Amino acid sequence: MSTTENRLRVYEQTKPLFNIPDGVTYLDGNSLGPLPLSTADRMGRVIQQQWGVELIRAWNTAGWYVQPRKLGDRIARLIGAETGSVTVGDTLSLKVYQALSAALEMNRDRKIVLSDTGNFPTDLYMAEGLIATLGRGHQLRLVRPEEIEESLSEEIAVLYITEVDYRTGRRHNMAELTARAHALGIVTVWDLAHSTGALPVDLARVGADFAAGCTYKYLNGGPGAPAFLYIAPRHADHARPALSGWMGHAKPFAFDLGYAPAVGIERMRIGTPPVLAMAALEASLDIWDRIDMHEVRARSLELADLLIGEVERLCPQLRLVTPRSHEERGSQVSFAFERGYAAMQALIAHGVIGDFRAPDIMRFGITPLYIGKAEVMRAIEVIERVFTRELWRRPEYDVVHAVT
Amino acid sequence: MSTTENRLRVYEQTKPLFNIPDGVTYLDGNSLGPLPLSTADRMGRVIQQQWGVELIRAWNTAGWYVQPRKLGDRIARLIGAETGSVTVGDTLSLKVYQALSAALEMNRDRKIVLSDTGNFPTDLYMAEGLIATLGRGHQLRLVRPEEIEESLSEEIAVLYITEVDYRTGRRHNMAELTARAHALGIVTVWDLAHSTGALPVDLARVGADFAAGCTYKYLNGGPGAPAFLYIAPRHADHARPALSGWMGHAKPFAFDLGYAPAVGIERMRIGTPPVLAMAALEASLDIWDRIDMHEVRARSLELADLLIGEVERLCPQLRLVTPRSHEERGSQVSFAFERGYAAMQALIAHGVIGDFRAPDIMRFGITPLYIGKAEVMRAIEVIERVFTRELWRRPEYDVVHAVT
Repeated sequence: MSTTENRLRVYEQTKPLFNIPDGVTYLDGNSLGPLPLSTADRMGRVIQQQWGVELIRAWNTAGWYVQPRKLGDRIARLIGAETGSVTVGDTLSLKVYQALSAALEMNRDRKIVLSDTGNFPTDLYMAEGLIATLGRGHQLRLVRPEEIEESLSEEIAVLYITEVDYRTGRRHNMAELTARAHALGIVTVWDLAHSTGALPVDLARVGADFAAGCTYKYLNGGPGAPAFLYIAPRHADHARPALSGWMGHAKPFAFDLGYAPAVGIERMRIGTPPVLAMAALEASLDIWDRIDMHEVRARSLELADLLIGEVERLCPQLRLVTPRSHEERGSQVSFAFERGYAAMQALIAHGVIGDFRAPDIMRFGITPLYIGKAEVMRAIEVIERVFTRELWRRPEYDVVHAVT
Repeated sequence: MSTTENRLRVYEQTKPLFNIPDGVTYLDGNSLGPLPLSTADRMGRVIQQQWGVELIRAWNTAGWYVQPRKLGDRIARLIGAETGSVTVGDTLSLKVYQALSAALEMNRDRKIVLSDTGNFPTDLYMAEGLIATLGRGHQLRLVRPEEIEESLSEEIAVLYITEVDYRTGRRHNMAELTARAHALGIVTVWDLAHSTGALPVDLARVGADFAAGCTYKYLNGGPGAPAFLYIAPRHADHARPALSGWMGHAKPFAFDLGYAPAVGIERMRIGTPPVLAMAALEASLDIWDRIDMHEVRARSLELADLLIGEVERLCPQLRLVTPRSHEERGSQVSFAFERGYAAMQALIAHGVIGDFRAPDIMRFGITPLYIGKAEVMRAIEVIERVFTRELWRRPEYDVVHAVT
């Protein structure tokens, strides 16, 4: 897949494949990717023909049972993972939990999980929960992102971080940190939530141990789409599944009373897979199969530079929090602004959808499959209007929603 | 809901609401419920209008964020649970894990989890995994189903069983066992996989502590539809979430670094909810909202008695393993037959879909919303033909599929 012949030219050939509502400039694909035009039909067929007609037989005839691995292999290409090393299912919270649990067991003599304050909170919460369940004196040590490298030591059991910071867009150097961690006997767990589909990832080459990510952001898998888990093949047959469900059993349909893990990554399946959600993901991966991640990256940096330059020039009230260096950032651009919540509401009301992350971060996702120079210029125009006229002062933009 | 005026008469008014393929007699709704005719449209609207047009805003505007609780409240009615005591998400494997973990922490001085050999294996596997993770000398004690009552003692921490046996259809007496467990200081976790939508359940009245179930069987939520978890309101604010994801945080959108559980059952949410899968479930609950579970139960017993009587009369090769007493059984009928796998393949080839569970159980699900006397008589006719002519001897029925 993604051979030169069938490759799609990013933006020119991909934008027509997505449903972007009229009047909307959508810079929130880093939170929820927009709808591929082919998804509804695919879902309709799976519902009507597979569920509706094949019924229970579709587990075999339509391949439902093997979907977690088949979809995993398609994601594997995008993150530089080996074939057969990725499984799809559940949520990212659960997948990082599975990874962290297995990683800690590989380093039983050490008690410290090292993470940073830029990690997405659910990763930290899941670690807290696991540590409490373990009850063996593990500690979650949080440092600032820029302190991670100096905090690696032979005391650390697991390095447990997100490559790209969900608020600032700051990017860790995965290759360097992994090498340094390994030299110190540390096992690594990478959260790829803001990497997968955003930039090239090369898990096999950097020698990553565990990684997890989600598919509802850059990959356009749909709201609440399933997550994925990667385990390096050298570990996969040794990793103990803490969440040992029947789908990860060596012989699920023998219905044995005792658990025996399946070979390889399959052991990290848990319960019955989410067939309908996987149907939507399958439709979006039909696009991603034909994408060159290096092309995505080049376009995303170019567009982000344009956004940064113009917003800094036109809106001095906004303070860039995303690193300027290409190497040190992901695919989103974030600005700090004290009244950022209201300002983002004002932008949304004027057709530019980004999002807000407490306490003061305005995020703009750069997603080149459907965002090009025209969309970024339009966003800049609206941002300028909102800030020049201080539209964020209007009381209607202070209404707080359940989900921000 | 289910007031006398809007109630649907089971079968006569409900069968037309389902897609049952021509020529198929579907007795496997206890494994995968068939497709409601309204599901595809509902899904299409959620995809096209909510995801497609509202995009990220749909978390608020379309109520995605509160769906786990809203759907939970609709399931609550079917299982006699208090409003606000049920949350929807993840898989049954994960929901029983959450329940068992919290239950064990309520009984810290005891180390034994009591279950039976008729429990669905994933429940046992998840318990094994939890016990290994805890590493504190807990023991999973398995007895035969009929030995459960006599095995209750002050040594037991948690009674952890499935109300209706997935193979035999044998039903535990939930009220009696719960009362007896409580008298001995035992916390109860009930798996309702083969109860929800199959027969009246009355969690609040029996004083159950924890319960979990799935929605892809009797409730017709679709393949891999999300599961649900019940916690008695008296426990919900004290139960520690072992799987402490951001959606169960007291303030998910404050993005605090430290975990603090939400009030009540909301704390048992884990990651981002499966919006598309919930859309399908919502469509099927539109039917279930209008169903009287006592009517379902009366019809199911009547149809099961018919099936049992005729099969025993016509096919002496088959040995009934489902209890004859109405009180002691759920809504499925199971027969043991040594060549059951091949026999079930022969039945399926002749349009009667049931399923097989190792080593020798042929299961027939009685689901009165779309199965009536005509369907059962048709099934009996085909079963008789397969056994009278010994069609299971044909080699083509010995092909083993991945999913049985």
